[in-house]
Amino acid sequence: MTVFDEELQHLKEKLLRMGSLVEDAIKNSVLSVVERDNDLARRIIDDDRLINTLDVEIDEESIRLIALRQPKAGDLRFITMAMKITTDLERMGDLAVNIAERALELNQEPILKPYIDIPRMREIAQGMTRDALDAFVRKDKKLAMDVIMRDDEVDELKHSVLQELAFFMVQDPTTVTRAMKVSFVAQYLERVADHATNIAEMVIYLIEGKIIRHMAMPPENM
Amino acid sequence: MTVFDEELQHLKEKLLRMGSLVEDAIKNSVLSVVERDNDLARRIIDDDRLINTLDVEIDEESIRLIALRQPKAGDLRFITMAMKITTDLERMGDLAVNIAERALELNQEPILKPYIDIPRMREIAQGMTRDALDAFVRKDKKLAMDVIMRDDEVDELKHSVLQELAFFMVQDPTTVTRAMKVSFVAQYLERVADHATNIAEMVIYLIEGKIIRHMAMPPENM
Repeated sequence: MTVFDEELQHLKEKLLRMGSLVEDAIKNSVLSVVERDNDLARRIIDDDRLINTLDVEIDEESIRLIALRQPKAGDLRFITMAMKITTDLERMGDLAVNIAERALELNQEPILKPYIDIPRMREIAQGMTRDALDAFVRKDKKLAMDVIMRDDEVDELKHSVLQELAFFMVQDPTTVTRAMKVSFVAQYLERVADHATNIAEMVIYLIEGKIIRHMAMPPENM
Repeated sequence: MTVFDEELQHLKEKLLRMGSLVEDAIKNSVLSVVERDNDLARRIIDDDRLINTLDVEIDEESIRLIALRQPKAGDLRFITMAMKITTDLERMGDLAVNIAERALELNQEPILKPYIDIPRMREIAQGMTRDALDAFVRKDKKLAMDVIMRDDEVDELKHSVLQELAFFMVQDPTTVTRAMKVSFVAQYLERVADHATNIAEMVIYLIEGKIIRHMAMPPENM
């Protein structure tokens, strides 16, 4: 293993560490809603700076690597993609903070109803996040494709959550402000899944050199 | 002007072109809501691929520039930031598409009320987008700071929109589904402003080497 290989390995590990912090933040933010746990919500908001620090560190390390080692095409592409991926991860951390903020507000009021679809959305979005990053570091096209496919499930769950919330609001106007906040939580989770999808699309681009980025579905001939 | 300077100039122009497409998309998406214009909404959804194409082109050009010219620290930092900024711009284009999608749905139902705060949110978010990119290509710290300051205005407008919508829903349950969709438009615009703020924070980091990225407000000693 050359020094450069080791440095590259270190970068990958840091990216995975950032990813695992983001995953935890998403998981715990939804827990703070479902279990009405204010302490947990506050911890997520505080801990977001750890994610942000890693974002800056990965950028710095990437730039240093490029400047010092002048990597060739494949590695250069990998390193610059890592920098783009941290932008998505950082936004996902912000979304976890948004969910935790809604938790703090929702926990001041009586519970609307037990949550079923939102924990399910969280589970899928979290899995997509983990798999998108694994697909990136292992250059696993099949896994990246699989992440992209799962995005539709999250969208469908979001639609069913929103429909149910609209029903509550129509039946009982006292639920309006709470139901709106829950609808935002569903939206944040949908956006987490969108970011994971973005990352997966970049992985396929990295492997294939083909632009499936920004396509609704992977083309049939891939 | 060296060949490298020209190439760098070309990259900047492409980034500004992408930014101006995103600005137009945001402006028109809100117009398609306010003026209930389905054709315009569909055009935004179609034209998003132009934004996505530029995203990929800028990435490709950046990687080629780095590989061929091996730019030194300052230029390298600038080019890699450009690649990160396109990630934000691309997401902003997606948000304009989301707004246009809500327009197509909202235009099928009677109008809820004339829009006042949403066009105002759009105006500020659009201005922030333009100024954040100008600040980047001109390395203008003052302008970047100014962008960051304006984010609070957008947040306040969003809160007042949401409060008004909750009032509608409580008063008249037949407004619920429409009001929810309008609330999503307000959320999308808030997120556009967040992305512009991200870009502005990266600009300050580029100039200062200081991490104000991810801080709520710039520190007093800057």
